Amino acid sequence: MTSEELTLTEVREEAKKKLLGVCGVYKICDGDSIRICQGQSYGRPLGFGGIGSGASFRNNILAMKKLNLKIKLVGDHFEADTKYDFFGRELSMPIMGASVSGVNSFGGEEVISEKEFCRSVVLGCKDAGTVGWRGDTYTYSLAESYGIDAIAEANGTGVKIVKPREQEVIIEFFKKAEVAGSIAVGVDIDGCGSYAMATHNKPVFKKNFDDIKELVSSTKLPVIVKGIMSVGDAVAAKDAGAAAIVVSNHGGRVLDHTPGTIEVLPDVVDELKGKIRIIVDGGFRTGYDILKALALGAESVLMGRDVVRAAVGAGKEGVKIQMEYLQKILAQAMKMTNCATLRDISSEILY
Amino acid sequence: MTSEELTLTEVREEAKKKLLGVCGVYKICDGDSIRICQGQSYGRPLGFGGIGSGASFRNNILAMKKLNLKIKLVGDHFEADTKYDFFGRELSMPIMGASVSGVNSFGGEEVISEKEFCRSVVLGCKDAGTVGWRGDTYTYSLAESYGIDAIAEANGTGVKIVKPREQEVIIEFFKKAEVAGSIAVGVDIDGCGSYAMATHNKPVFKKNFDDIKELVSSTKLPVIVKGIMSVGDAVAAKDAGAAAIVVSNHGGRVLDHTPGTIEVLPDVVDELKGKIRIIVDGGFRTGYDILKALALGAESVLMGRDVVRAAVGAGKEGVKIQMEYLQKILAQAMKMTNCATLRDISSEILY
Amino acid sequence: MTSEELTLTEVREEAKKKLLGVCGVYKICDGDSIRICQGQSYGRPLGFGGIGSGASFRNNILAMKKLNLKIKLVGDHFEADTKYDFFGRELSMPIMGASVSGVNSFGGEEVISEKEFCRSVVLGCKDAGTVGWRGDTYTYSLAESYGIDAIAEANGTGVKIVKPREQEVIIEFFKKAEVAGSIAVGVDIDGCGSYAMATHNKPVFKKNFDDIKELVSSTKLPVIVKGIMSVGDAVAAKDAGAAAIVVSNHGGRVLDHTPGTIEVLPDVVDELKGKIRIIVDGGFRTGYDILKALALGAESVLMGRDVVRAAVGAGKEGVKIQMEYLQKILAQAMKMTNCATLRDISSEILY
Amino acid sequence: MTSEELTLTEVREEAKKKLLGVCGVYKICDGDSIRICQGQSYGRPLGFGGIGSGASFRNNILAMKKLNLKIKLVGDHFEADTKYDFFGRELSMPIMGASVSGVNSFGGEEVISEKEFCRSVVLGCKDAGTVGWRGDTYTYSLAESYGIDAIAEANGTGVKIVKPREQEVIIEFFKKAEVAGSIAVGVDIDGCGSYAMATHNKPVFKKNFDDIKELVSSTKLPVIVKGIMSVGDAVAAKDAGAAAIVVSNHGGRVLDHTPGTIEVLPDVVDELKGKIRIIVDGGFRTGYDILKALALGAESVLMGRDVVRAAVGAGKEGVKIQMEYLQKILAQAMKMTNCATLRDISSEILY
Repeated sequence: MTSEELTLTEVREEAKKKLLGVCGVYKICDGDSIRICQGQSYGRPLGFGGIGSGASFRNNILAMKKLNLKIKLVGDHFEADTKYDFFGRELSMPIMGASVSGVNSFGGEEVISEKEFCRSVVLGCKDAGTVGWRGDTYTYSLAESYGIDAIAEANGTGVKIVKPREQEVIIEFFKKAEVAGSIAVGVDIDGCGSYAMATHNKPVFKKNFDDIKELVSSTKLPVIVKGIMSVGDAVAAKDAGAAAIVVSNHGGRVLDHTPGTIEVLPDVVDELKGKIRIIVDGGFRTGYDILKALALGAESVLMGRDVVRAAVGAGKEGVKIQMEYLQKILAQAMKMTNCATLRDISSEILY
Repeated sequence: MTSEELTLTEVREEAKKKLLGVCGVYKICDGDSIRICQGQSYGRPLGFGGIGSGASFRNNILAMKKLNLKIKLVGDHFEADTKYDFFGRELSMPIMGASVSGVNSFGGEEVISEKEFCRSVVLGCKDAGTVGWRGDTYTYSLAESYGIDAIAEANGTGVKIVKPREQEVIIEFFKKAEVAGSIAVGVDIDGCGSYAMATHNKPVFKKNFDDIKELVSSTKLPVIVKGIMSVGDAVAAKDAGAAAIVVSNHGGRVLDHTPGTIEVLPDVVDELKGKIRIIVDGGFRTGYDILKALALGAESVLMGRDVVRAAVGAGKEGVKIQMEYLQKILAQAMKMTNCATLRDISSEILY
Repeated sequence: MTSEELTLTEVREEAKKKLLGVCGVYKICDGDSIRICQGQSYGRPLGFGGIGSGASFRNNILAMKKLNLKIKLVGDHFEADTKYDFFGRELSMPIMGASVSGVNSFGGEEVISEKEFCRSVVLGCKDAGTVGWRGDTYTYSLAESYGIDAIAEANGTGVKIVKPREQEVIIEFFKKAEVAGSIAVGVDIDGCGSYAMATHNKPVFKKNFDDIKELVSSTKLPVIVKGIMSVGDAVAAKDAGAAAIVVSNHGGRVLDHTPGTIEVLPDVVDELKGKIRIIVDGGFRTGYDILKALALGAESVLMGRDVVRAAVGAGKEGVKIQMEYLQKILAQAMKMTNCATLRDISSEILY
Repeated sequence: MTSEELTLTEVREEAKKKLLGVCGVYKICDGDSIRICQGQSYGRPLGFGGIGSGASFRNNILAMKKLNLKIKLVGDHFEADTKYDFFGRELSMPIMGASVSGVNSFGGEEVISEKEFCRSVVLGCKDAGTVGWRGDTYTYSLAESYGIDAIAEANGTGVKIVKPREQEVIIEFFKKAEVAGSIAVGVDIDGCGSYAMATHNKPVFKKNFDDIKELVSSTKLPVIVKGIMSVGDAVAAKDAGAAAIVVSNHGGRVLDHTPGTIEVLPDVVDELKGKIRIIVDGGFRTGYDILKALALGAESVLMGRDVVRAAVGAGKEGVKIQMEYLQKILAQAMKMTNCATLRDISSEILY
């Protein structure tokens, strides 16, 4: 165990070298004003930062900081069980790799090919007993679909998220993902604001209720709507037949000055708990953060920036080590808050 | 589009070189304590900072930060329309260049002549489909009126703001502005505290209700009262016949420790919405910030410091690029908050 | 006027050189964690900082920052009148020099003799039309009473504050101050915690109601009780016959983690307004700060650290320039908040 | 007195040299983001920092900062009496050395042997008239029990805290402590999350109500339960027969994102005041901090990090000087808040 832990430090040290000038691989990744990644983009690549002033990125972190955990120790001894049911599959943990894509367009030199990056996330997550999600950007096409290829290589242990392109194109992507055996597919509806797509002749669109309904009908796979930051959009996604939503502000990269995702989560949970799978991302770094989201009613969490750093640092092995470290800390945090299984986690553990 | 965006970075890099020691042209311009511009002036030029401790400048920013935007995506696709009616003229955006003047007295060496600066703001804004406002300082006179000259060159696409000088002098300025074809004229009543004016034998005065009434009667042009930071002054301006007010603390440069302008705005809107045009400035940097002000009920926003930096960096071309960038981001932010036109913007989009 | 302003910058630059390693003479003096003066003393001289963690010093500033001023401009023109009645004398402003003493024991080399320091404060304040208070420390005695000597030289334009020594000693000091023609005398009751005094065989004591009463009876001069941080102590001082109180935490130098003085002031004002003169100090730097205290009901303010820096920088001339600058900014702030005289100042001007 | 104070500075300077790269021995020890000790551990030794992001460590400090003390001076003179009854022994102060152990595994080279460290804490505290607690880590065994040896050398002036090992092992440790004459024994139940123990084949366990009851019955000594951060655990400990509890988050080293201990303290006091001895640790640095805890109802406070630094700096002499300094400042703070004895301290002194 100790050697693995040391290895995560090594993975990150390696990533730090490769990401020089793009990401500092700081001990604390919070988009703070002294970080490389922070500040007005004025049309430059976002790097690992947030859009505009970076407030949405920081709000994710700041909202997380406001939540405290209640230590509860007197009780029978156990080692916490973090097993998670994801669309009928038993995962080792309620933590999955997020659908980040286009890592090389973050700025700086090429540090990992998109193909290798996708393989690292999907296979690394699989090796850790969980699932890597894969995304979409302007370099992707039906012909060159790095994410789906990686999912196929992992015998379907993956989720494919498509940008809100033309309906027909999305449906074609979904079909390819079905063939690859994906667990689920989805659309990140907040991608409609993507300049990267628009400026490379890959138009993206706002999607209305009927659009989502059509996408849900187009595939046998569960359809996930990602990019929910209001109860209205959450309810619309559910009513249109989505199997899951991801409360997400795209890591703070699509609109400046949104609240933190974990501020929006409780409202969505109040409205839809038990009616749809509620997943969340944005600003999660540690097993402690993940426990907070579960306490607020999310069923699982996607990890973005740290999975990218792990993949850049040591490919699929890096991702595996990263995910296992998260699981270990989550289990420890569950022990300290008296939660033997995911079912024992509730808002009672927040102080 | 990408080339334009890169150009804004270049414009700012150029400004940074010219403003060495006066303004850092930081990615984030917030008057923070580690900035060149911050701190006690003790009679020195203010540079780009605020007066005294700089609290009023910072409060503008801090108040803005407290407001969050609500992402709302499920809906019909559109590209946002930012067109704005300003006294009967259709502008491309509800964003105008502020009436900053005396840029060279900010400290440091001369970086742009006042004449060229005025031309840059007025012509650059016009080229971007909007309007540049022009101001007044001790170097201005009826004989040497740089702002009005620039407005004349732009065939009247401009607004002339005069310091609260003797009534007769203001009226003469208004007449010159009329001749130049200005859209509107106005007085920044907070200029009564200007040391620069007083110490150069250009006396300035507090203005009472009758003074404002007299100014309104003196011209066929709409009269704008700028420097409103209380409901009382707003109502007085309206009752005296002003066509518009600007909620403004002069960029935090006339009194230390005022609230942020966007904290005062809602009270003024509650009292006067629909009865007078309400414009605001102070701490606005991005299209996101502008959307917040519109959500709170302002009809448009003036941009000061960034327009100065753009003019210093690349003259009227710089100002045009700056304004177009703001419009683009405003349109994107409107898309992400489900506002197809300015009329769709309301406090509903704030979280 | 401009030349005077420049001179204050020069005065401070000079002080900065002399106080190297003791005080940075920063543009903002707030006891922040990156300042020389901040942090655990562990028995070392306090320098210009606060005791312990410096929280009391910082709380003075932080509490001040929370108060905002309301700009109010529409009205008849005036230049503000800052004249202040202090025990029957008309001062030019409600701002006096605080009773700081023992400047050379702040640490570092001797930068000004105690005698010269006392002369600088008293004569500099007098030249600015106001009053310098003088204090007491272990190097003072009835034989060597630098403060009273300076007050005598200024024909009594001064106030003498004595540490809470033995009753008889205080009374002897009072008598000497009477002879010197002092306007008033007083005791800083928070001096009972002074290590400097105790460790140099100058014992100091807590004072009870009867002690204060005895001191009041011992002299014809008005007696001031300084070091009030609770309503209870304020009422006791008034009931014992004190003519004035100073709400003060000794610049944050006698107890760590007190609230800011301006947080305590309103409670004291609520209880005693009109029944006793209420003066305040602690964290005041500018005319804006002073206006806030007056708005909360203090009748005047004492300036400590900046007067010391001014005296170190340029003796009595430095103090005069400092006080005049404060008066000028106070007058300007009064104009911007529509207060023609001190009587027009009320909590209405706070936002 | 002055020479002692200077010595504390010297002790700390010495510690600073020895702890290079591990602890900065800053004037303010607050786990702030610019400190050496801060940030994600990723399996590395924690050093002097907190676990994970360090939020629990910082929350201890931040919660303390929110509490202010009320100066109250008018009253009869006294020198404060800090004497404290601890299980029938009269201590010089309500401040004891915490049960920190394994100092050399904090990272860096060996700076003090564990044996010498234990002797320093126990004998140094005893010399200052108070008590040093001793802890447990994976290098400890029944054969090599450094803490108990030191307590024996001090004729029993100490408290032995054991990690939550197997019941039989704890009971054996308790028996050894009895033989050594310890004042009390205890278990830090939050040690059940210790990786250091688990990874060195020293298994640790959550303890239930019956486990605690069994431990209480196993010894004639008072049993202390340490690591209480919820009312539930506090009540369970009391009902199981514990003689005292320590409200503690283990210095922020066992779970990230807990509240500050001083936030939890009032709830525990409300429930159990007078029914069990309530002690607290976490983030205490000065006599002022200690006074706050006593005002909130704790009967005494344990000091961790500063005692370690003092021991590293100058062994038992260092610890003695550290403790005496704390006592002196506590007494001074009591004088300034009008508390002649510990019994006079109540929440009335908080502002």
